Amino acid sequence: MANELKITEEFDIAIVGCGPAGLAAAINGAIRKKKIGIFGTDFCSPKLHHAPHIDNYLGLPELTGDELRQRFLAHVQKMGLKINDNKVTGVYPSEGGFTLQSRDKFYQAKAVIIATGVNTVKPIEQELDYLGRGVSYCATCDGPLYKGKRVIVLAYNREGLEEANFLAEIAAEVILVSQVKERDAAGIHLDERIKQIKGKPVGILGEMWSTGVKLEDQELKADGIFIIRDSVLPDQLVPGLNVSNQGIEVDRHCATNIPGIFAAGDCTGMPYQLSKATGEGQVAALSAVKYLDELKNKAKKELANWDRGRR
Amino acid sequence: MANELKITEEFDIAIVGCGPAGLAAAINGAIRKKKIGIFGTDFCSPKLHHAPHIDNYLGLPELTGDELRQRFLAHVQKMGLKINDNKVTGVYPSEGGFTLQSRDKFYQAKAVIIATGVNTVKPIEQELDYLGRGVSYCATCDGPLYKGKRVIVLAYNREGLEEANFLAEIAAEVILVSQVKERDAAGIHLDERIKQIKGKPVGILGEMWSTGVKLEDQELKADGIFIIRDSVLPDQLVPGLNVSNQGIEVDRHCATNIPGIFAAGDCTGMPYQLSKATGEGQVAALSAVKYLDELKNKAKKELANWDRGRR
Repeated sequence: MANELKITEEFDIAIVGCGPAGLAAAINGAIRKKKIGIFGTDFCSPKLHHAPHIDNYLGLPELTGDELRQRFLAHVQKMGLKINDNKVTGVYPSEGGFTLQSRDKFYQAKAVIIATGVNTVKPIEQELDYLGRGVSYCATCDGPLYKGKRVIVLAYNREGLEEANFLAEIAAEVILVSQVKERDAAGIHLDERIKQIKGKPVGILGEMWSTGVKLEDQELKADGIFIIRDSVLPDQLVPGLNVSNQGIEVDRHCATNIPGIFAAGDCTGMPYQLSKATGEGQVAALSAVKYLDELKNKAKKELANWDRGRR
Repeated sequence: MANELKITEEFDIAIVGCGPAGLAAAINGAIRKKKIGIFGTDFCSPKLHHAPHIDNYLGLPELTGDELRQRFLAHVQKMGLKINDNKVTGVYPSEGGFTLQSRDKFYQAKAVIIATGVNTVKPIEQELDYLGRGVSYCATCDGPLYKGKRVIVLAYNREGLEEANFLAEIAAEVILVSQVKERDAAGIHLDERIKQIKGKPVGILGEMWSTGVKLEDQELKADGIFIIRDSVLPDQLVPGLNVSNQGIEVDRHCATNIPGIFAAGDCTGMPYQLSKATGEGQVAALSAVKYLDELKNKAKKELANWDRGRR
């Protein structure tokens, strides 16, 4: 990242994800008078949206998943909160808290709540090993590093095709391995400079640095590899985050191993359930509020000490 | 307890407490087709009932606490569940699970969820040390042990006065130290054999066995001491339960240190909040269901082994 980032907006608490956990965190943080940023796609919780009948959210029986989702969204809107549909691809420590990156935009937050839902994606072999060493999830962020070089784009969604087009402007050669269904690609005109290769990616090649992609039936060489899919793995979103097979590791206060970063909902593990998610969203928000208040008190004390020192 | 108890009703899962955590546990257990028993007073959650305005239960904004409580109760009733208003005073391990004692009634459950809310009562000095050694919380249960003897009743509620009357029928002498306000005692005629002494109990006297009660200004001697108040301390309710300053110790699955006993809501510690409580109620119920299913599978396997052995 550059030395001076242009920050689009600053928050007390940024929430990544807008399913039940993220929304519950948002309303609880807002009630405690914190400035809240909610990041998510327009379609916050596909699982909730598709549920035909939900009967186990206490107080609201016999609704469809979509009716319940609409009620959740209405509650959030009633509190004056909006969902920012820029997809967050990375959360990095920075002065005064954390910087959230979303393509070419940057946001700043004093605390962050991860509520990205259950992770249905399995990374391909060695993907995480080469993260930051030739493997990237964001063409807008890392594309300029590959000016005049050869890159491979593994596209799992429409955005991946757009990213390939973007890279075609920068890189000397772009190889696209697309897993996108035809109907999802409708209307996208691929740059002529892009070379398409059919196949299923099964692993990343390399030694200290990644050198290419292994497909089922061949190997492709490149200087850089871009993997573009809908969901972002938690430890890819937040470098250094402790994640187990069950999900992001949190304590009973929904605190992760990184001070100032909390997690709630399906991303912290089973059961993948509505009330569990909203409950954790609430706990994470209140823990974040407590964390911020403690930071503020500490700063006040330091200032007082400094003032005393001057007298 | 006698060798053969008359069991009033049997459950898969008994839930002690009918605030948000208990009710959430109940609906989730019922959806999983378990036979559920909910135990609580008619007034499940005084805290919720009195809240003038609740805005942080996702999906149901801008309600009073009582409106929300009514919705919760309606949801539970809609699922065919009823609240049993017999107060549970003890949960003890027994063959096939646990026995719950409520005055002179006994219930049986394969698993138990404790959802008794936040504990506002501080035990008097040495009370817990003498529990079962001269100190009792249930006159109906332990009264007969004191036939022809001298007992002290420390009454903190209306029920305490009734228990004193009951004990007057059995014991040789009943000393009543009442903390009950006059309007709460309205309509209760105290047995003439009861001797009332005014004062505030500050400790239990005794050595191996309790020998009396220390008031602020005097000491009273007795063979047995009955302490009757609204809330029951968790470790008094379930002997052997691990409890810290924060509350009942549970893991992220709401399991306590005793296999088959789970806990949810305010009784597990802060934050004392609605969604946290319903979320934990759901998690506790699903953990209890899993526990029961595992027990059943184990039994099936054992039966299969036994059948194989016979062939």
